[in-house]
Amino acid sequence: MRNIKLVIQYDGTNYSGWQVQPKAVTIQGILQEKIGKITGEKPTVLGAGRTDAGVHAIGQIGAFRTSSQLSPSVVQSALNATLPHDIRILNACEDDASFHPRYDAKSKRYFYVISFARTPSPFLYKYAWKVPYMLDIDAMNCASQILKGRHDFSAFRASGCGAKNTIKTVFQLSIERSETMEFMCTKINGAFLRIVIDADSFLRRMARNIVGTLIEIGKGRISAETIEGILSSKDRKCAGPCAPASGLFLEKVSY
Amino acid sequence: MRNIKLVIQYDGTNYSGWQVQPKAVTIQGILQEKIGKITGEKPTVLGAGRTDAGVHAIGQIGAFRTSSQLSPSVVQSALNATLPHDIRILNACEDDASFHPRYDAKSKRYFYVISFARTPSPFLYKYAWKVPYMLDIDAMNCASQILKGRHDFSAFRASGCGAKNTIKTVFQLSIERSETMEFMCTKINGAFLRIVIDADSFLRRMARNIVGTLIEIGKGRISAETIEGILSSKDRKCAGPCAPASGLFLEKVSY
Repeated sequence: MRNIKLVIQYDGTNYSGWQVQPKAVTIQGILQEKIGKITGEKPTVLGAGRTDAGVHAIGQIGAFRTSSQLSPSVVQSALNATLPHDIRILNACEDDASFHPRYDAKSKRYFYVISFARTPSPFLYKYAWKVPYMLDIDAMNCASQILKGRHDFSAFRASGCGAKNTIKTVFQLSIERSETMEFMCTKINGAFLRIVIDADSFLRRMARNIVGTLIEIGKGRISAETIEGILSSKDRKCAGPCAPASGLFLEKVSY
Repeated sequence: MRNIKLVIQYDGTNYSGWQVQPKAVTIQGILQEKIGKITGEKPTVLGAGRTDAGVHAIGQIGAFRTSSQLSPSVVQSALNATLPHDIRILNACEDDASFHPRYDAKSKRYFYVISFARTPSPFLYKYAWKVPYMLDIDAMNCASQILKGRHDFSAFRASGCGAKNTIKTVFQLSIERSETMEFMCTKINGAFLRIVIDADSFLRRMARNIVGTLIEIGKGRISAETIEGILSSKDRKCAGPCAPASGLFLEKVSY
């Protein structure tokens, strides 16, 4: 069996997330259906990140095993010809038989976009969380420094998370404010905040729970110093609310 | 009667253009309906550019007369609360009673986006014309230099154009290639071409017919030198095809 690796970009707005579910349209489900039509097999497409409903991907990594002799570029072209336009295969190549997109990932980088614009642009409103508050970015940066590194992130995991290992390493957690954003090389109204989270792996909704907590700190509702207590509590109720899915992007998976 | 000026941004994908038409959903039609509900009047909303079906606007200018005493900022908030998310009012202010968005415009700037990406991004495919050819940018630039200035643009106007004056002045016609584009501050795959056209006014489909002609020149199907002959022919059949609406944006109106 050959193992075909895919680089996948998608707008998650119209999907019930990555993972196959009965009676729901998912990215994994559509990929398995279209690959099945191309190869005549019933493939399982493994993904690097099981993105939630409404979460987007710039560079999701998938892989499936096949006995078909089709070249990766033919698979890519055939998939792009049959997939909906909001899911695209940016690359396809053959990888080692043992390659697993999730288990082999050294790190996954997500970014989250927050819009301060009084009037969000029609072109970008689907991709940012509108937060009409003045935020204390210094306090958010201070909390980010505490969250970085190797910790038990149980306080930031959603109920229903099946992970056995709750200890994760956050390599990067940075917050950048920009006064404008570009769309089609043109400046668009309103300031934005971009939060980048790079970690070895993520618990369920960990990225969105970290963002929601950082925003509470930015609003002054939680102090940055309490982050250590939230981590050691291992109690989801101690952290802030989950940020909406639509602002989150899986940017890059590193192996 | 007060004259309220609006700065309007819209994603034209789901609309039959600016101008009110029976049995079609248009930007002007929706604005008139929503303003009517707010003021209790039957307003006519004048626009600076009568964008075609599928054409987008970063900074369209509109204006309507009203006897209502509502402040412009209340009008803006009430409109943004009732308009669909793909149409936004970026600003509202009171202007001179005589202000006319189209007649008073000194220039209008449009830009057009062409994508060379083999696999267009799910986030940008609605906003660019996919042209999978190597284009001769030098020849396109040469033709642009000839098109710039004051000319009779009859060869570039669509049938049904009712303009009496076909002599227009193109102030700027520039072509920029960029190897990548940003989306939410992240580099997106594939090279793009951005054509900027700034003119005192436009004949019907003039911007798209100029872009379509420049692409024919880029492909080598028309030589740059024939542009003078096309202009002097005043014959639409001599110019290139009309470029698709979805790549065109009304960027800015200057007064």
